[in-house]
Amino acid sequence: MNDPPEENDPPEERAMTSDIGAQIEAANAEVVRRLVEPEVTFVGVDVALNVVPGMHERLILYSGPPIEWKRMAPVQQESVIGAALYEKLADSPEDARTQLDTGKIEIAPCHHHATVGAMTGVTSASMAMLIVENDEFGNRAFCKVVERELQFGIHNEDVFANLDWLRDVVGPALDGATNALGGLKLIHHTSQALHMGDECHNRNVAATALLVRKLAPSIANVAPADKVSEILDYFDRIDQAYLGFVMAAAKALTDAAHGVEMSTVVTALARNGVEVGVRVSGLGDQWFTGPAQDIDGAYGPGYGPEDATADIGDSAIVETVGLGAMAVANALTAGAIAGGTAEEAIQKNRTNMEIAAGRSRSFTIPVLDFEGTPTGIDVRAVVRTGIVPYVLTGIAGNKAPWGRVGAGVVHPPLEPFIAAVKAFATSIKE
Amino acid sequence: MNDPPEENDPPEERAMTSDIGAQIEAANAEVVRRLVEPEVTFVGVDVALNVVPGMHERLILYSGPPIEWKRMAPVQQESVIGAALYEKLADSPEDARTQLDTGKIEIAPCHHHATVGAMTGVTSASMAMLIVENDEFGNRAFCKVVERELQFGIHNEDVFANLDWLRDVVGPALDGATNALGGLKLIHHTSQALHMGDECHNRNVAATALLVRKLAPSIANVAPADKVSEILDYFDRIDQAYLGFVMAAAKALTDAAHGVEMSTVVTALARNGVEVGVRVSGLGDQWFTGPAQDIDGAYGPGYGPEDATADIGDSAIVETVGLGAMAVANALTAGAIAGGTAEEAIQKNRTNMEIAAGRSRSFTIPVLDFEGTPTGIDVRAVVRTGIVPYVLTGIAGNKAPWGRVGAGVVHPPLEPFIAAVKAFATSIKE
Repeated sequence: MNDPPEENDPPEERAMTSDIGAQIEAANAEVVRRLVEPEVTFVGVDVALNVVPGMHERLILYSGPPIEWKRMAPVQQESVIGAALYEKLADSPEDARTQLDTGKIEIAPCHHHATVGAMTGVTSASMAMLIVENDEFGNRAFCKVVERELQFGIHNEDVFANLDWLRDVVGPALDGATNALGGLKLIHHTSQALHMGDECHNRNVAATALLVRKLAPSIANVAPADKVSEILDYFDRIDQAYLGFVMAAAKALTDAAHGVEMSTVVTALARNGVEVGVRVSGLGDQWFTGPAQDIDGAYGPGYGPEDATADIGDSAIVETVGLGAMAVANALTAGAIAGGTAEEAIQKNRTNMEIAAGRSRSFTIPVLDFEGTPTGIDVRAVVRTGIVPYVLTGIAGNKAPWGRVGAGVVHPPLEPFIAAVKAFATSIKE
Repeated sequence: MNDPPEENDPPEERAMTSDIGAQIEAANAEVVRRLVEPEVTFVGVDVALNVVPGMHERLILYSGPPIEWKRMAPVQQESVIGAALYEKLADSPEDARTQLDTGKIEIAPCHHHATVGAMTGVTSASMAMLIVENDEFGNRAFCKVVERELQFGIHNEDVFANLDWLRDVVGPALDGATNALGGLKLIHHTSQALHMGDECHNRNVAATALLVRKLAPSIANVAPADKVSEILDYFDRIDQAYLGFVMAAAKALTDAAHGVEMSTVVTALARNGVEVGVRVSGLGDQWFTGPAQDIDGAYGPGYGPEDATADIGDSAIVETVGLGAMAVANALTAGAIAGGTAEEAIQKNRTNMEIAAGRSRSFTIPVLDFEGTPTGIDVRAVVRTGIVPYVLTGIAGNKAPWGRVGAGVVHPPLEPFIAAVKAFATSIKE
């Protein structure tokens, strides 16, 4: 590990340690460059089977680090069962469970398929996927067109009809509209929204409004005339419609930033309701995990902590590219969820700068005189300072009737970061 | 005038002075209440002839305090001539000038007809007007559907075709859409935009995006299918599309707040490029004027101060209800036009609190822990402190080819405020 050289080290060892430090700094600088320089384009919408790498008809993806079916959080199991029914892989929930027990229906993390999913993240073959592309590296990433039911474990005929409608009506309109515009530049788009009250994790009101403003003229041209109003209404109803776009964009950046040898920067931060997982650019495909934490939240009427699933979802991918908690000073209205004064929220944003390897170029903070948001979480800095990037998140119920029971703030545990630092130290010694 | 009582005043005079002070405070509190409590609804669009009180076919309205045709700023004259040609009142610019010289074509301030107009403000009988209504007082106010050419003195067949299109295509769609929604609540709408980077004078990006987001589903239902895309495109092209809505809303509030005896609060702040005019709630229909100031601006390529019309337009009506400069801490991005740091912009906003009789309830400043924006400019406080509410504004050219030559910051002169205080003192002594 990158211990500072000490006076009583032999000279050659001091040189080596210092050399390793320089290598890490150079590697992290390259990772930060990959996180902050490329533009990402929204190129279209298609069903997962057609576009998601490795997707097949019996595969269901979920959020967070890898977990066995039996250990999965109940709400995530329920979403997976819902997807199995939606895809007509099973006749009943019991049938689905049996096939999942035996591996006849397969499951895998979204993250292993260039995909991210909010909350339970459940994604299956015939769902409509937003497709984004990293302009510099050419890699693509994917996220479901935002829906608000199955991701919270709810499944019934209405939910399935909505998934059909997203695929058959909204998806083609978005696909046609972005193609008519030659592709929508998501980093630029996100940077605008960041100056308009969004931090683009828990709050995407401006990003969604700007999105519909840009796409609406083309949607009116490409969609069937009798569908235009209902498509536009989707973007009026759902403040978080943009979350899928920005999550996919963040995944397209982090995938391209992954695999830089000697880098200690986080390229994935994901939760499955049981564990929080971290991946590090220089540490290959290994996930470092710790227990998913309870959310310090505000609950809806009739709900309390006993109804809550612990921290869940891939959405914290946006924190790894300088959004969400890394931009919370821009979203004092959303910050109100966490209580406290404006100055406290701004201070939280400053604090996160202590664990970042760099600053964003595109994402800036007006109230801090347009300083770039902290970007590239360095696991060494997290362990050294004890600062973990808190996440603003929705809370999923943990039993029927499922659904969203609240929203709040959660700090990922230190364990995955400590484990990553240890693994890094070991890899250096080898 | 409200001099503080002095020890050596006779007791009855002290009592009277103190009584006058209390009367002024009570009157100003009522004016502030009228500025901050009512909701204002966007109820529809119609041509000026049908809805603007006192409008007739030979009348052309203009921005700012009253001014004779011959003294009018050249750019405002040019706009009036454009309107005369558009309305087919004249065959040529020369013919229009002759009829304006002789009074055959009449002119009047927008403000005298429950109307406000941006820049030259020129408004004539067949133009499409946004109609808003004060929910508490029932009075209506009006502003042109935003166009960007005639208001800067440009008139030609394209400009006239655009005015036709606004009246025949955009107007009916807006009218149908807001009616389908039961009327759009503009104070609520504006308060949202204020938390999204707008101060709703120089910057209306969020307000416009939120507007199209809300109205688009209904526009798609009520407009002819082949027109939906071009209508939605209007709101994508024009960041300031919302300015007309918020100006009309401010006029609906200030008209209802006008005429409260003993009040020293400003109910109109308007400029015509030659003079700045102020009206005060307790001082009847009199305008107090001073010279329009040069704008400290950033100019477009090829333009400089020698090409600029001095401060012009009714848009400063929004400053009188707690928007624009009164909310600039919310719009640090727009504030960048004026240069300086974030803290300086926030400080400017704080400074304006010294001249305000109250605080807004709906318009708040997140970075100041959601304090209400300063609302209700008290002419006494302006004179006492020397603080004039600076205005962010566009700059109109002063010769052909006319148009917008830049944008900048301008401080109205102190003269109108001093004149108003003197008039108030005189009225008290009578």
